[in-house]
Amino acid sequence: MAPQTLSTVEEYKKLVDSVEVFLLDCDGVIYHGPQVVPGVKEVLKYLRSIGKRILFVTNNASKSRRMYKSTFDKLGIEVSENEIFGSAYASAVYMSKILQFPKDKRVYVIGQAGLEEELDAVGIAHAGGSDPEDRVFIDQGDYSSVVADPSIGAVLCGFDAYINYKKYSKAYTYLKDNEGCHFLLTNQDATFPTNGTTYPGSGAMSAPLVFASKRTPTIIGKPNKIMMDAIIAEHHFDPAKALMVGDNLSTDIEFGLGSGVRTLLVFGGVTKREQVFGDNASETVPDFVMESLGDLAVLAKEK
Amino acid sequence: MAPQTLSTVEEYKKLVDSVEVFLLDCDGVIYHGPQVVPGVKEVLKYLRSIGKRILFVTNNASKSRRMYKSTFDKLGIEVSENEIFGSAYASAVYMSKILQFPKDKRVYVIGQAGLEEELDAVGIAHAGGSDPEDRVFIDQGDYSSVVADPSIGAVLCGFDAYINYKKYSKAYTYLKDNEGCHFLLTNQDATFPTNGTTYPGSGAMSAPLVFASKRTPTIIGKPNKIMMDAIIAEHHFDPAKALMVGDNLSTDIEFGLGSGVRTLLVFGGVTKREQVFGDNASETVPDFVMESLGDLAVLAKEK
Repeated sequence: MAPQTLSTVEEYKKLVDSVEVFLLDCDGVIYHGPQVVPGVKEVLKYLRSIGKRILFVTNNASKSRRMYKSTFDKLGIEVSENEIFGSAYASAVYMSKILQFPKDKRVYVIGQAGLEEELDAVGIAHAGGSDPEDRVFIDQGDYSSVVADPSIGAVLCGFDAYINYKKYSKAYTYLKDNEGCHFLLTNQDATFPTNGTTYPGSGAMSAPLVFASKRTPTIIGKPNKIMMDAIIAEHHFDPAKALMVGDNLSTDIEFGLGSGVRTLLVFGGVTKREQVFGDNASETVPDFVMESLGDLAVLAKEK
Repeated sequence: MAPQTLSTVEEYKKLVDSVEVFLLDCDGVIYHGPQVVPGVKEVLKYLRSIGKRILFVTNNASKSRRMYKSTFDKLGIEVSENEIFGSAYASAVYMSKILQFPKDKRVYVIGQAGLEEELDAVGIAHAGGSDPEDRVFIDQGDYSSVVADPSIGAVLCGFDAYINYKKYSKAYTYLKDNEGCHFLLTNQDATFPTNGTTYPGSGAMSAPLVFASKRTPTIIGKPNKIMMDAIIAEHHFDPAKALMVGDNLSTDIEFGLGSGVRTLLVFGGVTKREQVFGDNASETVPDFVMESLGDLAVLAKEK
């Protein structure tokens, strides 16, 4: 079944009328790197003016909500921190509210300050992460700094530009030796787009731990339902009244389809038209497609 | 079908008589870390005295043949460099003799000096590896040092204690952007044993590149037949007259089984008795098992 293409004011209006909560992917929907997608500012203002709720749902695990707000501020887009739901915060909410991670244990973090900030926000103690002692190279054969630590009750892996063998060895050791040690990934994106190309993403970063430990991690970010459970645990809405808007079939659209939320794919991001229409179309079919979220700006003018 | 257990002098003698070339795994067969397995020195001397050929076949990609010889020297085991066949040298031989890697291209190395030394030995130009410029951390978002390099015609990934995001990003970029770029792994060991425990191995190290590039690499080391092809390309023997001796079912024994070489599993390394005998035995069945290669020392005394 092909998705419904939206291109007229009537089609836009009918969709918007049926949605109470807009779940918006960021990169590829709201902005492309430093460029805001044309019309999107007007659309956000319009949706708010008619009482819609907006949540920004992103897999980027290196930023906290505070950091995201600062990014949005710089782009001239008004948001409040509690409208932002990144996989770093989702991981913290999952560990705190759903996993009920014990207060006397610590999580070993492969990740950056944004992830630590969100763990701090929910009161989960952590090790690793941005600790300078773990941002070092160790010589082959010198494992003296990789020692047992029974206080570690989970390993949480996100994006870490300072990834190194000491971090991998420590995380692997905890996963192997600490009984009941949880294994969590913020998300499993193979790559992420920037500068008009792509680089290895959080999913690539965590691959050595999965490969070496032979364990199956719990994955938080889109397309996993855990992300939606964490969003709803915080924001309490009826999935049937929500719409997930994204540019990525395998994260955004799968995410909506797997959690009872309707989906709108926009072009101009990572998905090409032939992945949705035609003989070689993906098996992942969004409910709706349109060129750009910015196209809804016409509704503001009609108003 | 269960393997044949060898435990008497007659059984040992019959096997040795039928073998011309002994392919010996090192760690777990010849030594455990700094300890030579009891009896093994006598066995090596005996096998040589009766005209048998011996080749040391190891997946460890961080050492060159020269480095291995130095390790053997320190253990008081007499070997010549051309009796040693590690996955670093096998990768170099494969690239040079089988792949016929062009002289005007370079291979981007994730690996250490031993791997570079073996590439030098066969005249293959390389980048990355132990270059201090690639042994650094880069900040997230600063990809200015990750630039196109059309001279790179292959990415070769082995064990690298100095693995970092710059190396992953460069290797991924070449795999993605350089047309016809080969993708090779020295081996795919998930872990390696040392200090009575294990740490993430070369297979874990290469996992981000496999995950991000979605490409299928050519894997050189045991259990892959490429390793045997490279050994035979150098040493010219009839596989039917060879015996692979190892302690690991999934590397050593699979290696022999997949390349027409008989296999002898020794205990005392990574494999436990219940993985070979009983209801939950592995589907990988060696031809022969014995306690230790050192047990053959009894033949020297009989002589």
